[in-house]
Amino acid sequence: MDPYPKPLRELITQLKRLPGIGEKTAARLALYILGDKSELASAMAQALMQVKEQIRLCPVCHNLTDRPRCAICLDPSRDACTICVVEDPSDVLALESSHEYKGLYHVLHGLISPINGIGPEDIKLPELLERVKNTSVKEIVIATNPSVEGEGTAHYILRLITQIRPGVHISRIAAGIPMGGELKYMDQVTLASALRYRRGLKDQ
Amino acid sequence: MDPYPKPLRELITQLKRLPGIGEKTAARLALYILGDKSELASAMAQALMQVKEQIRLCPVCHNLTDRPRCAICLDPSRDACTICVVEDPSDVLALESSHEYKGLYHVLHGLISPINGIGPEDIKLPELLERVKNTSVKEIVIATNPSVEGEGTAHYILRLITQIRPGVHISRIAAGIPMGGELKYMDQVTLASALRYRRGLKDQ
Repeated sequence: MDPYPKPLRELITQLKRLPGIGEKTAARLALYILGDKSELASAMAQALMQVKEQIRLCPVCHNLTDRPRCAICLDPSRDACTICVVEDPSDVLALESSHEYKGLYHVLHGLISPINGIGPEDIKLPELLERVKNTSVKEIVIATNPSVEGEGTAHYILRLITQIRPGVHISRIAAGIPMGGELKYMDQVTLASALRYRRGLKDQ
Repeated sequence: MDPYPKPLRELITQLKRLPGIGEKTAARLALYILGDKSELASAMAQALMQVKEQIRLCPVCHNLTDRPRCAICLDPSRDACTICVVEDPSDVLALESSHEYKGLYHVLHGLISPINGIGPEDIKLPELLERVKNTSVKEIVIATNPSVEGEGTAHYILRLITQIRPGVHISRIAAGIPMGGELKYMDQVTLASALRYRRGLKDQ
């Protein structure tokens, strides 16, 4: 017999659908929500409904927004000549937290992955090509993850854009040893990449 | 500038109120909920509303239920002569998962804690005394945690029930080394308790 009353079991079932949350954590969270004296449950329910209703994709860069266009695209202080191509909206958030990049973004919402049946038409690649054709972009920074799919997608984008507008400068974010990382713990591919893309110290 | 659109920030704020969930986990969960193609957000919102609407306390044992009385109190196969006293509904769930106990429960919803200004009247202790007076209970198993408040509450219950109905047998769950635990890693109080409450092996 399930020791939980039905509505509590239902909440646990729903919480368990979240990544990294198992039966025990879900039960702990559900009991916490139930025991909360304030309006936690209703505030959370409302936030869940609103996020689904109000969040849409920016028609230009396909980043998440609750406006007709996203805050980054609308910001006049951003450099409209540079577009950084990323896989997911969470990548935009990660890059923004570095405060290093001042250009615009293009979110692909996926990577080309023949093994999973995902082709160039299944992600926002045609939209990127349209953007490159119709705007005064001068540089494309390809910031997909350094994985098999990420590298494959990067090379595909490089080839296409070189065909359409050969004048556009195309760069790739650096792959190497992360700050604070130690050589002895790095995998072979990262070390090989760090060596291959070494930079002359005098250039800086 | 907050990189998150307002409804997404609101969902992250609400998720962060849950215990053990910080900014990074909340953001990861919120983006997962947003990216989910099925009805995760609305199903979760509905579960949150229903749990608050439908879950109440059993008027007899004060355990969580969605019925007029809880499933354990209504179960005719349970031994109505034994009442196990616990602090929280989650303790009932933990004990039920052991399949060892076949009696009824009484959930105090707290422990006596003078330092936090919680007296015997602030928890479901008067209700326990009423129950002991008016039912044919023969044994009370006090299963509060082996903490300062748990021990204090246990002794308080022992004194009160001995006054009201001296014939009731009152027991305390065993404190000692948990199964699979190692002596060398145990704290002094646990070791002292394990020694003090040692049992004769021939008794079994």
